[in-house]
Amino acid sequence: MRNESTKLWGGRFAAEPEAVFLDYSQSIDADARMAAEDIWGSEAHVLMLGVQGILTDEEVRAILRCLEEARAHVEAGTLALDPADEDIHMNLEKFVIRGAGAEFGGKLHTARSRNDQVVTDSRLHLRNRLLDVLEALAGLQEALLARAAGQERTVMPGYTHTQHAQPISVAFWLTGHVAALMRDGQRLLAAFDRADACPLGACALAGTSFPTDRALTARLLGFARVEAHALDAVGARDVYLEALSALAILHAHLSRMSEELVLFSTYEFGMVELADALTSGSSIMPQKKNPCLAELARSRTGEMYGCLIQGLTMMKALISGYNRDIQQDKPPLWAGLDLAEQTLGAVAAMVQTMELRTARMSELAGANFATATELANWLVSDRGLPFRRCHEIVGSLVRRLIEERKTLGDARRVAQLLAELGVKAKVAELDFLDPLKCLERQRSLGSTGPSETLQLHVVLVQALHDGRREAASRRRRIARARGRTARAVKHVLRGGSLADCKL
Amino acid sequence: MRNESTKLWGGRFAAEPEAVFLDYSQSIDADARMAAEDIWGSEAHVLMLGVQGILTDEEVRAILRCLEEARAHVEAGTLALDPADEDIHMNLEKFVIRGAGAEFGGKLHTARSRNDQVVTDSRLHLRNRLLDVLEALAGLQEALLARAAGQERTVMPGYTHTQHAQPISVAFWLTGHVAALMRDGQRLLAAFDRADACPLGACALAGTSFPTDRALTARLLGFARVEAHALDAVGARDVYLEALSALAILHAHLSRMSEELVLFSTYEFGMVELADALTSGSSIMPQKKNPCLAELARSRTGEMYGCLIQGLTMMKALISGYNRDIQQDKPPLWAGLDLAEQTLGAVAAMVQTMELRTARMSELAGANFATATELANWLVSDRGLPFRRCHEIVGSLVRRLIEERKTLGDARRVAQLLAELGVKAKVAELDFLDPLKCLERQRSLGSTGPSETLQLHVVLVQALHDGRREAASRRRRIARARGRTARAVKHVLRGGSLADCKL
Amino acid sequence: MRNESTKLWGGRFAAEPEAVFLDYSQSIDADARMAAEDIWGSEAHVLMLGVQGILTDEEVRAILRCLEEARAHVEAGTLALDPADEDIHMNLEKFVIRGAGAEFGGKLHTARSRNDQVVTDSRLHLRNRLLDVLEALAGLQEALLARAAGQERTVMPGYTHTQHAQPISVAFWLTGHVAALMRDGQRLLAAFDRADACPLGACALAGTSFPTDRALTARLLGFARVEAHALDAVGARDVYLEALSALAILHAHLSRMSEELVLFSTYEFGMVELADALTSGSSIMPQKKNPCLAELARSRTGEMYGCLIQGLTMMKALISGYNRDIQQDKPPLWAGLDLAEQTLGAVAAMVQTMELRTARMSELAGANFATATELANWLVSDRGLPFRRCHEIVGSLVRRLIEERKTLGDARRVAQLLAELGVKAKVAELDFLDPLKCLERQRSLGSTGPSETLQLHVVLVQALHDGRREAASRRRRIARARGRTARAVKHVLRGGSLADCKL
Amino acid sequence: MRNESTKLWGGRFAAEPEAVFLDYSQSIDADARMAAEDIWGSEAHVLMLGVQGILTDEEVRAILRCLEEARAHVEAGTLALDPADEDIHMNLEKFVIRGAGAEFGGKLHTARSRNDQVVTDSRLHLRNRLLDVLEALAGLQEALLARAAGQERTVMPGYTHTQHAQPISVAFWLTGHVAALMRDGQRLLAAFDRADACPLGACALAGTSFPTDRALTARLLGFARVEAHALDAVGARDVYLEALSALAILHAHLSRMSEELVLFSTYEFGMVELADALTSGSSIMPQKKNPCLAELARSRTGEMYGCLIQGLTMMKALISGYNRDIQQDKPPLWAGLDLAEQTLGAVAAMVQTMELRTARMSELAGANFATATELANWLVSDRGLPFRRCHEIVGSLVRRLIEERKTLGDARRVAQLLAELGVKAKVAELDFLDPLKCLERQRSLGSTGPSETLQLHVVLVQALHDGRREAASRRRRIARARGRTARAVKHVLRGGSLADCKL
Repeated sequence: MRNESTKLWGGRFAAEPEAVFLDYSQSIDADARMAAEDIWGSEAHVLMLGVQGILTDEEVRAILRCLEEARAHVEAGTLALDPADEDIHMNLEKFVIRGAGAEFGGKLHTARSRNDQVVTDSRLHLRNRLLDVLEALAGLQEALLARAAGQERTVMPGYTHTQHAQPISVAFWLTGHVAALMRDGQRLLAAFDRADACPLGACALAGTSFPTDRALTARLLGFARVEAHALDAVGARDVYLEALSALAILHAHLSRMSEELVLFSTYEFGMVELADALTSGSSIMPQKKNPCLAELARSRTGEMYGCLIQGLTMMKALISGYNRDIQQDKPPLWAGLDLAEQTLGAVAAMVQTMELRTARMSELAGANFATATELANWLVSDRGLPFRRCHEIVGSLVRRLIEERKTLGDARRVAQLLAELGVKAKVAELDFLDPLKCLERQRSLGSTGPSETLQLHVVLVQALHDGRREAASRRRRIARARGRTARAVKHVLRGGSLADCKL
Repeated sequence: MRNESTKLWGGRFAAEPEAVFLDYSQSIDADARMAAEDIWGSEAHVLMLGVQGILTDEEVRAILRCLEEARAHVEAGTLALDPADEDIHMNLEKFVIRGAGAEFGGKLHTARSRNDQVVTDSRLHLRNRLLDVLEALAGLQEALLARAAGQERTVMPGYTHTQHAQPISVAFWLTGHVAALMRDGQRLLAAFDRADACPLGACALAGTSFPTDRALTARLLGFARVEAHALDAVGARDVYLEALSALAILHAHLSRMSEELVLFSTYEFGMVELADALTSGSSIMPQKKNPCLAELARSRTGEMYGCLIQGLTMMKALISGYNRDIQQDKPPLWAGLDLAEQTLGAVAAMVQTMELRTARMSELAGANFATATELANWLVSDRGLPFRRCHEIVGSLVRRLIEERKTLGDARRVAQLLAELGVKAKVAELDFLDPLKCLERQRSLGSTGPSETLQLHVVLVQALHDGRREAASRRRRIARARGRTARAVKHVLRGGSLADCKL
Repeated sequence: MRNESTKLWGGRFAAEPEAVFLDYSQSIDADARMAAEDIWGSEAHVLMLGVQGILTDEEVRAILRCLEEARAHVEAGTLALDPADEDIHMNLEKFVIRGAGAEFGGKLHTARSRNDQVVTDSRLHLRNRLLDVLEALAGLQEALLARAAGQERTVMPGYTHTQHAQPISVAFWLTGHVAALMRDGQRLLAAFDRADACPLGACALAGTSFPTDRALTARLLGFARVEAHALDAVGARDVYLEALSALAILHAHLSRMSEELVLFSTYEFGMVELADALTSGSSIMPQKKNPCLAELARSRTGEMYGCLIQGLTMMKALISGYNRDIQQDKPPLWAGLDLAEQTLGAVAAMVQTMELRTARMSELAGANFATATELANWLVSDRGLPFRRCHEIVGSLVRRLIEERKTLGDARRVAQLLAELGVKAKVAELDFLDPLKCLERQRSLGSTGPSETLQLHVVLVQALHDGRREAASRRRRIARARGRTARAVKHVLRGGSLADCKL
Repeated sequence: MRNESTKLWGGRFAAEPEAVFLDYSQSIDADARMAAEDIWGSEAHVLMLGVQGILTDEEVRAILRCLEEARAHVEAGTLALDPADEDIHMNLEKFVIRGAGAEFGGKLHTARSRNDQVVTDSRLHLRNRLLDVLEALAGLQEALLARAAGQERTVMPGYTHTQHAQPISVAFWLTGHVAALMRDGQRLLAAFDRADACPLGACALAGTSFPTDRALTARLLGFARVEAHALDAVGARDVYLEALSALAILHAHLSRMSEELVLFSTYEFGMVELADALTSGSSIMPQKKNPCLAELARSRTGEMYGCLIQGLTMMKALISGYNRDIQQDKPPLWAGLDLAEQTLGAVAAMVQTMELRTARMSELAGANFATATELANWLVSDRGLPFRRCHEIVGSLVRRLIEERKTLGDARRVAQLLAELGVKAKVAELDFLDPLKCLERQRSLGSTGPSETLQLHVVLVQALHDGRREAASRRRRIARARGRTARAVKHVLRGGSLADCKL
């Protein structure tokens, strides 16, 4: 008597899988978090099969009853998942078969495949998690805007090449990050929208001969549209790569902010002090206060890039259709989403609680020739000299001041040296060499001038509001679809017929 | 007498740069291709300065005259670029100063910086190149659709796990790629639109005290909007990372198509024969015909991923504002754009000229149980058995046939074995075991059924048309802006005043 | 009364860490597996402090007693780790302080820092895990050699460009992988040796004023040498990047073998059949037998590359000394080591159990002109024609045969066509056109000729033996050092003095 | 009359390659730099064929004559390479055939293939370039050691987490980098040795039936051994990936040094001033002096990582044997080698010429509690308190001093506060709170204590010497082999017989 497989797909097989196979191929760890989505997907699928007459109301009811039971287990955290059943789909199908019997439960998998099921589940989960990340992103932007508010005249040195460039305001510095993060929000939303198409019903790769209604399934699951081409729907993973790319670029931005926090909170810069509660000490050096949160946020950028590379490498040179390779789409995707949400929270916490050392900022802004450009510009606009000539004059002037260990704050000496260089200027005329006065003169669109920065602030607050509204409307659409499915399930379980159920 | 720098920025410096510095830091190689964009940017800038009264008409005219001369050199390929002048901006500014004299030419750089200049130039160039890539992408999609046309009933095996799954049509196979590439087109267009904002006028990092009109500059350069926040505008590079991500995902798709061409043109598969003119022989093995083009397209996916990683790594942990690090944004970006365009052309050429061996396709489609799923589905729909039970029955049946070295093409034996497994079926009922008949039964939306595939084809042709229209409208907008600038330049050079020039 | 930190490093801090800080910065998950190593490190350190007179025998004894207790907990799996205590080091130090009191336990951290401690722990763990991976690698090589044995005359097609090139033997094919894997083993061993230096005693970054004996600590921990430079010892992570690189290259090799298993087990190639117990079926397609293990091994190459990129990105642009960023060295390192071991096991299992379909191999070897090169070579050596001319002749001959749908197996027709091309040959002379005969003629060093391949086999068996001996000697050295430490601990705990303890 | 290919491999082909094929597949750009190596390889091969009697002396002579001519062209830079001939091998073979006629020249390609030829050429070139990189690496180490010399008592702050940790010396800081770079040297040398095996004679994939002597070829090319297994020899690229990994890790180190140069030369840190000749100014801000060289060295780390990812991605999932994919091994390899050499030179130039601002270093070392750890250690060793308790005492003390805006330099106040915390200490006892005195107390192996650091310096100078000797011996071996080949060629060209030629 020959050995036979106990797998749901085992008819053709003469032997059970070995442990090495099960260990290496199970995906329960990455799947577990999609249990609720898998159930929702099955509900929608079964309701559709019922509406289309592929299953009877009675069959639909028996299956839905078990699915409700499974959902209760999921919500209570008591659903037992057996790695020997490979994935979440097989675990739940077996649960239904055990509960409803093979006669009824065995009909759940009609007109679908794990290939379309898994990508449906993961898109459902991705949608929610992207909205969570967008919320955390908005939280960070709000924190930055809150700290920027009222700081349009708080002077600090603006840097290029990590060298003093020109005076800027704290508000200008912080809103700069908000502006960059806006584009991250747009990219994440675009990834959401690209993923917002329903693959369910594509079946294994070729569709099916059952008279399914894929638009109905999509509507019940709150998808914006059907991912029509069956071969493409089950075998493509580019929307996940797009999400990972957007997350990687976002994390690059977060690494830049983290770097600034590390740098600005050094003894040498001293412009920022991080909250005690968000830093840590040393096991050996008693005086240390280390910006560990910022360092870790900077470091984990590598983790995010790694997730992206994992996904890209995985997809290289796979032929069309489902290949088991792409089971590994989920670990980097979930890791990336979780990481982004956490890092956004960590950076926001630092931003909210950091102390801005404005006296030190002001001191630095005046210490190292940051107003030299304005002096050159003034020579252009007030004296009508060509900019390139002014640049030379001021360059020579700066060199002289460095030799004399003086700064542009010494307006008298500046006036003397200008005279030597052929430009007559009164000391009083040079008041813009003060960093704050210099700042106030900037007036081009998007500049660090107070009124321009205020205008940037207003625009960014509005954009943040609009972005949140976009996310909220998607969140509501999903909730509405979930409610629609739940009501239909309740209707059927109460003995109602699908014929009189509005879907 | 001390040594002084001859650099345009040299006023403050006591020594000339050393060779090791110039060699390592020059960017002329990557900049050279942006010469026309740099000139356009200068024209727009100078016209704006004139309109705003920052420069006089006479000054504007003198500068524009030199810029026209430089443009003529660029078009003739005779512009001499000196690496000692570091980049394209300094080379062209020196050209203008030499031509117009320091009095006039020295005013070109008023109210701008190389920091905003370079990102403007590269965005201008990126826009054009993205449109080129979109055109090449549309070319490949068109080639695929042309080969798909009329092949809705040409049967081939559909694969999952590189194993025969179900029969599909050639049209279904090829349109699957078109569907995936549509999303690539959307991503590239999104990257275009995100890059379509004008940074010029942000100056070094903080804007300027000159009364510039950034909206006018943006309009003259055909940008959709101004990239307002000056600090963000000069220091961010996320739109380039977004473009590289979109290109990397696209190349992953191209690697998948290439893999199929390699695989399907093996002796063993034999479903495709690549054109002699697109393959090559061996220096030692006289019989060889190697799919080198497909192999190289597959391989160079790594080059694209490398470009993306270069960009991501570069941006990690840079503080706000311009850092010289980001000079290196251009080499991977240009390489990525060039590579994508080339690979799209190479794959399109293979698709256009490949011979489809339909007899072999049909033979394979019937050889290895690809219609087993349909048999299970038939047992469900015709006999009312639960799908899971049908799956078991057919699994056992297949196992028996394998032992007997038979296929599902032997309908008589199938009927006998079904009977043994408890299902009575007439041989005539089992005609759908023929791959083509099986194919014709598929009727779900997006399936391989001929009418459904025809419908997919129609939708994709329309989408291709729409995508091309989107690209064309952007191309036209750029051309209109270019024309507007050119007319204004001509007007001024003919002695006209900016006061009566409509911009 | 002000709030104070309860942290061991908390003296300077006015507030406790917030949850967001603790969540984001704790490393207990990655640290937990180093508990035994951390204890061993503390034992060696404390013994050294005692020998040097920095601690008294009594103090050493009190601390060792608690460490033994902690070890018992670790071995029983009952050690409670509190994430609020950040890492394994603080958890264990607190455990000792609780057990031995602050008076004694508070002396454990004398003359060390977490900075040198963590890198010591992770190097200790890495050493063991690299030896595990080397063992798994040897297991795969052994499996390949076992399957190769006796197959020197089993003909199969050798491929270049996935096209038939020349006949090779199964033994030649399989030993080719063994040869490549040898270099992987060398790289892993080199990474072991580079990591085999003891950082303990480097303290925070600068060493210490205590009269420590770092050579003694290193000896007790079985390190080959001291990692002398303290700043380098705590801040460098290149040996981990080296290990990750070696693992990434190894996984590239495993992906190549996996690809072959996927390809060769297709219906079309049909040269290999994977064991039922290592493949799986489809939830929808009853006939499917999918090479999932091979596909997953191929896919997870991306995971390994991602681990490497994570490490490389993390290290970019960190200044000297310890930075919290490098806490994240362990997640990718542990993940990479685990993955390599698992994948090696998975591929070995497939190799051991796969069925080689030698009839199909032989059929393919003769079907598609694989002996054409030998025909050209024969024309050179037997007829004295220049090779390039022979290549042309045979190329033309092949083209004719393709047109006639014949193969080189038809020696009569080959002789006729040769005659037309100007070369007279008797049919009997052309017996080498048979793949096996062709194979037997190869006689260059390292060729597929049976005696040459047998020689390769012998050399590889010897190399495998040597490699295992190398690994075993390192394993023994570690065990000896562990024993030396354990004996010294026992001696002290029994009341013995360190003065009469041979270390 | 049908069209026929003019390619050397064209016998089987009915059509010439199209432009798109040639453009995409040619490798002349990456091959050109291997021309000398290709000729040397051909010389060695032909001499071996002659010695083995496969070619006559006359044939050998005719071929060698053309090769000498080709070499003269290469050295004069006048070798014309035609992309239509695809690669360097075909170009040179055609050159020989044109020069020696088909009768003689057509015999050059006997018993070899482009598959073994290209990997031989690239290994020959790689060997030289790795030695160049090793030389540049030694140059940087020498520069660091030169700047470290005599600086064992020059105090600066040592950092962890970019926060002041403990005082270290300049010599200790700089030698830390030398120590890390030593491991880079070891890895590069290991890559050299792994690549130092001769693939020539492996032919296409299976060896040959000609009675070749692969050991002789290897000896003539100065390889340490034969890469025996033919299939492995032509299809593996792991030694290139190993070289790229070693280069990537090296560049990570260079990015760390560059980051320090950027940071330490900020206005805020002010510890280093880079040479004017290695920095640059701003086109708009006249005062700027930007550390561009360091920024670019930091940035191009991404380029190196990208090269590695390109190689790794390329190799993923290729089956055994030569695939055209691996033609693309050379562009990232050459780019990586060139980049490493350049960056090493750039960083060395900065190190050699930077001004160390020792007064600022000393000021910072005393400003922020860097000696706190020594205070805790003193409490342990002098007062016998447990370290953990001392850490708390000093932590509290530091907190008090911060509140009072004092430092540890105020020994009187320190003594008072210690008394309040229960520890009596005389002011005179606390002299080690001076950074230099603190530094001088460090005495553990590898510590920043002057005599220990001097010892590190001595050891590193010796290691550098040893490393250079290793590299030089390899360089000499290659030169000897080149000489051996050249003499043999000359002997034959003068009419000598191979029979009396010692090889």
